[in-house]
Amino acid sequence: MAAIDLNSDLGESYGAWRMGDDKTMLSVVSSANVACGFHAGDPVGILETLRAAAERGVEIGAHVSYPDRVGFGRRDMDVASHELFADVIYQIGALQGLAASVGATVRYVKPHGALYNRIATDARQAADVIGAIKEIDPNLVLMGLAGSPILNQAREAGLSVVAEAFADRAYTPSGALVSRREPGAVLHDPELIASRMLRLAREGVIEAVDGSAIKIEAQSICVHGDSPGAVAIAQQIRQTFEREGIAVRSFLPSKQLS
Amino acid sequence: MAAIDLNSDLGESYGAWRMGDDKTMLSVVSSANVACGFHAGDPVGILETLRAAAERGVEIGAHVSYPDRVGFGRRDMDVASHELFADVIYQIGALQGLAASVGATVRYVKPHGALYNRIATDARQAADVIGAIKEIDPNLVLMGLAGSPILNQAREAGLSVVAEAFADRAYTPSGALVSRREPGAVLHDPELIASRMLRLAREGVIEAVDGSAIKIEAQSICVHGDSPGAVAIAQQIRQTFEREGIAVRSFLPSKQLS
Amino acid sequence: MAAIDLNSDLGESYGAWRMGDDKTMLSVVSSANVACGFHAGDPVGILETLRAAAERGVEIGAHVSYPDRVGFGRRDMDVASHELFADVIYQIGALQGLAASVGATVRYVKPHGALYNRIATDARQAADVIGAIKEIDPNLVLMGLAGSPILNQAREAGLSVVAEAFADRAYTPSGALVSRREPGAVLHDPELIASRMLRLAREGVIEAVDGSAIKIEAQSICVHGDSPGAVAIAQQIRQTFEREGIAVRSFLPSKQLS
Amino acid sequence: MAAIDLNSDLGESYGAWRMGDDKTMLSVVSSANVACGFHAGDPVGILETLRAAAERGVEIGAHVSYPDRVGFGRRDMDVASHELFADVIYQIGALQGLAASVGATVRYVKPHGALYNRIATDARQAADVIGAIKEIDPNLVLMGLAGSPILNQAREAGLSVVAEAFADRAYTPSGALVSRREPGAVLHDPELIASRMLRLAREGVIEAVDGSAIKIEAQSICVHGDSPGAVAIAQQIRQTFEREGIAVRSFLPSKQLS
Repeated sequence: MAAIDLNSDLGESYGAWRMGDDKTMLSVVSSANVACGFHAGDPVGILETLRAAAERGVEIGAHVSYPDRVGFGRRDMDVASHELFADVIYQIGALQGLAASVGATVRYVKPHGALYNRIATDARQAADVIGAIKEIDPNLVLMGLAGSPILNQAREAGLSVVAEAFADRAYTPSGALVSRREPGAVLHDPELIASRMLRLAREGVIEAVDGSAIKIEAQSICVHGDSPGAVAIAQQIRQTFEREGIAVRSFLPSKQLS
Repeated sequence: MAAIDLNSDLGESYGAWRMGDDKTMLSVVSSANVACGFHAGDPVGILETLRAAAERGVEIGAHVSYPDRVGFGRRDMDVASHELFADVIYQIGALQGLAASVGATVRYVKPHGALYNRIATDARQAADVIGAIKEIDPNLVLMGLAGSPILNQAREAGLSVVAEAFADRAYTPSGALVSRREPGAVLHDPELIASRMLRLAREGVIEAVDGSAIKIEAQSICVHGDSPGAVAIAQQIRQTFEREGIAVRSFLPSKQLS
Repeated sequence: MAAIDLNSDLGESYGAWRMGDDKTMLSVVSSANVACGFHAGDPVGILETLRAAAERGVEIGAHVSYPDRVGFGRRDMDVASHELFADVIYQIGALQGLAASVGATVRYVKPHGALYNRIATDARQAADVIGAIKEIDPNLVLMGLAGSPILNQAREAGLSVVAEAFADRAYTPSGALVSRREPGAVLHDPELIASRMLRLAREGVIEAVDGSAIKIEAQSICVHGDSPGAVAIAQQIRQTFEREGIAVRSFLPSKQLS
Repeated sequence: MAAIDLNSDLGESYGAWRMGDDKTMLSVVSSANVACGFHAGDPVGILETLRAAAERGVEIGAHVSYPDRVGFGRRDMDVASHELFADVIYQIGALQGLAASVGATVRYVKPHGALYNRIATDARQAADVIGAIKEIDPNLVLMGLAGSPILNQAREAGLSVVAEAFADRAYTPSGALVSRREPGAVLHDPELIASRMLRLAREGVIEAVDGSAIKIEAQSICVHGDSPGAVAIAQQIRQTFEREGIAVRSFLPSKQLS
């Protein structure tokens, strides 16, 4: 049976502030990118999300970020190699510790926000992140943007990688994401999004903004849960997949969401 | 041969700010209480200290704290159980991750500052810390003040414990530390301090402020390194021990500083 | 015409995290206690709230806190006098600067959360806050709990004070708030709350949990806006006051909400 | 009599961490760029530095920064306009409040570190800083790098500006600073530095790395105090100026250091 992974950013509440509906999203996704405290998440909330993920059998990834809480990790920063290297290890370690305390294991790393975008093409910062993962646990899988150079760079460095597509984003004919500054960059129609993702899961193809069909090799689809509308989209994708016989299942070998 | 452990608080620099002389202190102590980022320490500096500790064969402990960087973890805080529990796990995990990246292992936990003082007698917060340690790794040893109730509480909960004495502090006849608010609470004479610690290592006895000899069961002695004078005291203790045939050695079983 | 002030805690969003519905609440209250960045609020969000308050003619107070963002300023802290003194001035100054940039003026200070509760009875910390206010601007009014010792302490120190009651809290027969740990401490029925506040505004009396009528001298009523239910309560109070001919008006002399 | 301003970055301690020797530097300089808490400085330490500056009659500037304490404000950040605008106002306001509490006044603004470098040529971020200053207090003077575009941009926006040279930096023939990544970028010889600055004060000329004389219009010279060597250089400059009849005096009109 065909299968694909659904991932989402979770554990992003902080202190008295709530963000997203983690409980609901954990019934939709097979992989949870859990905040590590640098852009979002505090130990109490992260632990709660990890516990819920473990109960649901959802795989756990470290959603590491630049140290920028007030900017939610969305602002590009010129961090030095030794800083980025140590920051990534610290965050993964903290999440591993919290996961261990609920009997779970961190299985992959997905950089967040500005760091995610930067390392997609910045080979130096990419190397810092790759090096950090290798030093703390070379079995961790790196999740990155389908088609971005970092995937090959990580593979060559000996890491396993997983490529992801974004459910609610428009694509250029060359397979890149349309910039959020452009109109139409973000899609909102649950039916349309679900049918696009169904095609991706079946054929490995997404329709670009010019109507052309582009090849996207993705083993995971990123869905969002930070608004009621986003949750509805994620649920629509999952329901469509189930109806059409596509299993929603972690990209990790021999793990399957019941 | 008689032996005792020497421990010190290290890794307490932060960003552009230096604190202590970790390199020198790592040639004096057998156990390093390494900051975890909540009262002091950033990932870059912690990693550097861990690497140096690993190279010297110095054992590593997690110096966990209340989340109070500007107050250096020295201000008592009424944290809730679920907050303290998660904060302690987060910090230990982060340190474990950084330690793993340099091939080292966190072996014990020593709470810092206000948290250390609070849990010595506050059974509720003590239980939160003990519970956290048990959930992340029950093999971690808890270091606490010799004679304080938390040691029994932790033992009864199934943790190994190690009791420490403070080299530069005066003791009351009942075996408690003289409050820092009292005159004479902190000792400064390296010779005097070294001879007091020699007696402690040999006889398990410290002279109290009233001249009485008090029994202190301590497997470790805490020395400081945050000023040149403090480093000199620590070196004096080590030299005195070596001259008098007391080995400076980790309290952990079957580990020995060459 | 009888009149009373309504105040609410605003500007408590932080970075990507929203809290409360400031725009709506600014159409209800006559005084806005605006976060200063220590327990909540970032410069961008604070500025937005100040601008909206200025447009509505709502008076602005500095909602100063212990430095504890992750704990939302709700955890008691043993801060030293020189720390609390400087922290309060820093926060008031930051808010004054932001207020000045939108042509508004900070007129009063209402400590937040754990600090509010602590200084109600802790004369030392109360003196630190009072001293800080006097040093930065002795014309600032201190808002405190009706009946609490800090009000006299501040008056004797030369500050103007304003006493507040809490709309959604139960009172003991002695005029204290019922602890949140007790059942029934927080009221939820908008009609009941509005009629209690109407009686307070007219007669200076609140019914205590044992049914007795207690005298409360309050020039301001604190209403909350951090949930849809809380906003509805606040609106109900305002509508009741307007219907019954009680003006909602700042406690400051010669200022009136149109 | 010829005169020039000496400025230095002060108030950069944080919590338990010391940086620089503010007391000594305040006997050298006529202008103190005081940290505002975003890259360095906490309210207690800032207040102490402000009090000492006020006692010495040293003018006070707000040393505003990106929000990056662990990186000491030295890392370039892609902050949005509304973020930078509000962050700058918040910091100036906080410093104004602390200054008011010791009877002093903030007279100018000198951006710090990465922000300083960025806005020297990035007109968008420069406009954000200029706009912020104008909104909180258009009488504040903006201090910037001599020869950098931001000075004209600020003048055209209606601000007064002051241009500064760096005592311990090498200059290119075009009048730019030699990058710190180049050898010889930072000068260390107190005699050489003092004689270079003497020439600057007298002739408005600095010798570039190729030996050519370049025209630098600077009303202030930046000296550092973050190491004993840096303090010695600053003292050497002041002594040389005094010996040679150059008054060390704030750039502000009608203010003079006694």
